Amino acid sequence: MAATTVSLIAVPGVPLIRPGDDLAAILIAAIAAADLALRERDVLVLAQKIVSKAEGRYVDLADVSPSPRARRLAEETGKDPRLVEIILGESDEIVRYRRDILIAAHRLGFVMANAGVDQSNIEHPSGDGRVLLLPRDPDGTCAQLRQRLEAHFGVALAVLINDSFGRAWRNGVVGVALGASGLPALADMVGEPDLFGRPLRVTQIALADEIAAAASLVMGQAAEGRPAVLVRGVDWGARPERPARALIRPKETDLFR
Amino acid sequence: MAATTVSLIAVPGVPLIRPGDDLAAILIAAIAAADLALRERDVLVLAQKIVSKAEGRYVDLADVSPSPRARRLAEETGKDPRLVEIILGESDEIVRYRRDILIAAHRLGFVMANAGVDQSNIEHPSGDGRVLLLPRDPDGTCAQLRQRLEAHFGVALAVLINDSFGRAWRNGVVGVALGASGLPALADMVGEPDLFGRPLRVTQIALADEIAAAASLVMGQAAEGRPAVLVRGVDWGARPERPARALIRPKETDLFR
Repeated sequence: MAATTVSLIAVPGVPLIRPGDDLAAILIAAIAAADLALRERDVLVLAQKIVSKAEGRYVDLADVSPSPRARRLAEETGKDPRLVEIILGESDEIVRYRRDILIAAHRLGFVMANAGVDQSNIEHPSGDGRVLLLPRDPDGTCAQLRQRLEAHFGVALAVLINDSFGRAWRNGVVGVALGASGLPALADMVGEPDLFGRPLRVTQIALADEIAAAASLVMGQAAEGRPAVLVRGVDWGARPERPARALIRPKETDLFR
Repeated sequence: MAATTVSLIAVPGVPLIRPGDDLAAILIAAIAAADLALRERDVLVLAQKIVSKAEGRYVDLADVSPSPRARRLAEETGKDPRLVEIILGESDEIVRYRRDILIAAHRLGFVMANAGVDQSNIEHPSGDGRVLLLPRDPDGTCAQLRQRLEAHFGVALAVLINDSFGRAWRNGVVGVALGASGLPALADMVGEPDLFGRPLRVTQIALADEIAAAASLVMGQAAEGRPAVLVRGVDWGARPERPARALIRPKETDLFR
């Protein structure tokens, strides 16, 4: 990672996104309008919310009939039973729960609060609530968006989707990569020879998570004004591309589940 | 967080740091030599290693006599019993272990591999190994460095110390804040009113961890060439300063220990 300066630049003028919107076209227009001449290996980081919205990943709570299991879990967590039903439908496993907390393993492998089901910043025209699920295939969507952007701008790019995750032992949330294309989401760094002369040790850097966290500094969290951030200057050398799913620790090696 | 551009700038010319070095003087000289005119709220992020080295936090393995407990744990993890003895001395609790893995709660509260005891990138002139412990008081050191830097440059600054941590459910390491002064390490963001019209929800952003991760993109991991990074343009509004220890989840609310 040989860069000496990295820039995080909000892409201005991204409108509110609606189901069915052509996100690639919208991003291309915003980038062009802002005169942000894209460079080789620029990384475009997109907030999960705009990807989910373009995919129409809304669920109206009024349409949900909670199962007995969802009702029990709702009682124990103090959450809406319909929301819990949706979370169960998105998850492979409930990892931990207590009052106000429900940590699930999403079907895509992410261990996160509420399986990523989002109640905030959602317009609810009907008066009743609706929630927003994670994108269907974040790595695949990144690859598609990247292809469209590269075809238009004529340079090799990377695309990330980020979201905010809590952590087991630390307060507060940080930006994390849900999807990635065009960069090594997990990058092998050859370290120094170890203390006892054993072969070189390899450290794996969660490069896409570090970029996702950096982009969050510009996106902010509460509002949706800056859902696309250009990260310029990250140098991953000749390391091969790996998707964000490479960042998910396999359950077999998980010491905390 | 109203910034629209954030810059991550490596401070060039920071020499190898030795025990007893005056880190503030060295950083002031490097920043001045590089003509990096500091601005209000610039955040200077320092790699843990240079702070630990300036504090002389080396331990020679040859000086360590492992206890029976360290010997048992060394056998189960495949680690050097002297290293395990040092890790036990740095820790309040061993959280998990298995072959090649020893996750401890450092006395300062950080849950991390090997209690942060570092075997890499350490010069070992004696031929035998030595290791490097975490800084004694990362928040305190940040406050002292900040005071020296502010006195010299005449602007309000923030100082962070970062290190690379693994995570429970994700592969790879990311930059995390060990110490902080001059900014809200944990920042309360008032969110939208929630779905059911309840009072505004508050999300806590681990701002110092996001900055620490961003700085890692410039520092790299294997080498020590860029141990100081200036982060410019992060806007935390009027949120009050909080140290990095505010990022440590109290054990009582920890669901994964």
